[in-house]
Amino acid sequence: MSRPTLDFYLEFASTYSYPAAMRIGALAQAAGVAVRWRPFLLGPIFKAQGWDNSPFNIYPAKGRYMWRDLDRICARLGLPFRRPDPFPQPSLLTARLAHVGLDESWGEGFCRAVYAAEFGEGRQIGDEGVLRDLLQGLGVAVEPVLVRARSDEIKERLRATTAEAQARGVFGAPTFICADGELFWGHDRMAEAMAWAVRK
Amino acid sequence: MSRPTLDFYLEFASTYSYPAAMRIGALAQAAGVAVRWRPFLLGPIFKAQGWDNSPFNIYPAKGRYMWRDLDRICARLGLPFRRPDPFPQPSLLTARLAHVGLDESWGEGFCRAVYAAEFGEGRQIGDEGVLRDLLQGLGVAVEPVLVRARSDEIKERLRATTAEAQARGVFGAPTFICADGELFWGHDRMAEAMAWAVRK
Repeated sequence: MSRPTLDFYLEFASTYSYPAAMRIGALAQAAGVAVRWRPFLLGPIFKAQGWDNSPFNIYPAKGRYMWRDLDRICARLGLPFRRPDPFPQPSLLTARLAHVGLDESWGEGFCRAVYAAEFGEGRQIGDEGVLRDLLQGLGVAVEPVLVRARSDEIKERLRATTAEAQARGVFGAPTFICADGELFWGHDRMAEAMAWAVRK
Repeated sequence: MSRPTLDFYLEFASTYSYPAAMRIGALAQAAGVAVRWRPFLLGPIFKAQGWDNSPFNIYPAKGRYMWRDLDRICARLGLPFRRPDPFPQPSLLTARLAHVGLDESWGEGFCRAVYAAEFGEGRQIGDEGVLRDLLQGLGVAVEPVLVRARSDEIKERLRATTAEAQARGVFGAPTFICADGELFWGHDRMAEAMAWAVRK
């Protein structure tokens, strides 16, 4: 019998995707769930909803609350937290690199390294130099990987993943979708999504 | 020593306020917290954000998810659930009546009765006949209470509560605010708000 799967839709600019990405491995192992990491872009989905920016910037009271809430969550989980400036960070190249890494062996480690740099240390993930550092830290050969990240194949893969997310009802990140299509939105629904994935 | 207090901002049209209102009494008793029920109107706050309707209607993917999520929450809590039609329900008279009741002894029971009728049975809480039924069920003298609900004093009290909520950073419902100003948004943050209220 294969393990039940859970699709994990993550966006590298997304604040609540940070604690989700840092925790999902341990939770999935404990629950016996295989996680499929699906990096996508929220930008096109937000645009379809009429937003040209993060809703946390468009609606200031909501934004102020989100930063405070994330601060509390990270404190509780023992995760370092630093608010990235600017917010949101450009996440296009990172998302393409993640798709390259998920084809190989270093994808999940790269995703975690990006989130740790961005929200734990406040580094600029839109800066190619920062991404090179992170790849090197994972022992990845940087040049061929950057070339592949900019290939038509990977660009199209990211577009397709974003279209897939939108078609499955994703409207924010992180989102978790079980094999039966059941969707859970938000870091605070991650454990519930795991429980749904393994229920008989 | 008096018990720590928690301000509970509720809107009668708000879906997630339903499980919060049904559960907060037991949670507060267990935690040793005194809850101040603060019925307010989301309409003016949404309008200030540029919305003339519920965000769950404006953003259909988010709306579809919310209904499913609420269904799961109610199933888990053993609460009956029926989606009210139309949504959102007009909540003005109900909110005014709740302020009358909170001056007297039947306010919290009335709030719970409204939510149970609206989201448990799908009844029309904008209909004065339904509200009369609920008041009668609580043993309240209906006529004088309706007169008082429409008095300038109570109208102004509801306006002031909405302005107070907005000034304190409320942008959705339910919202919980501790004595030190710490704000928690959403039914899924209620236990955390209680824990914050009693922490030393």
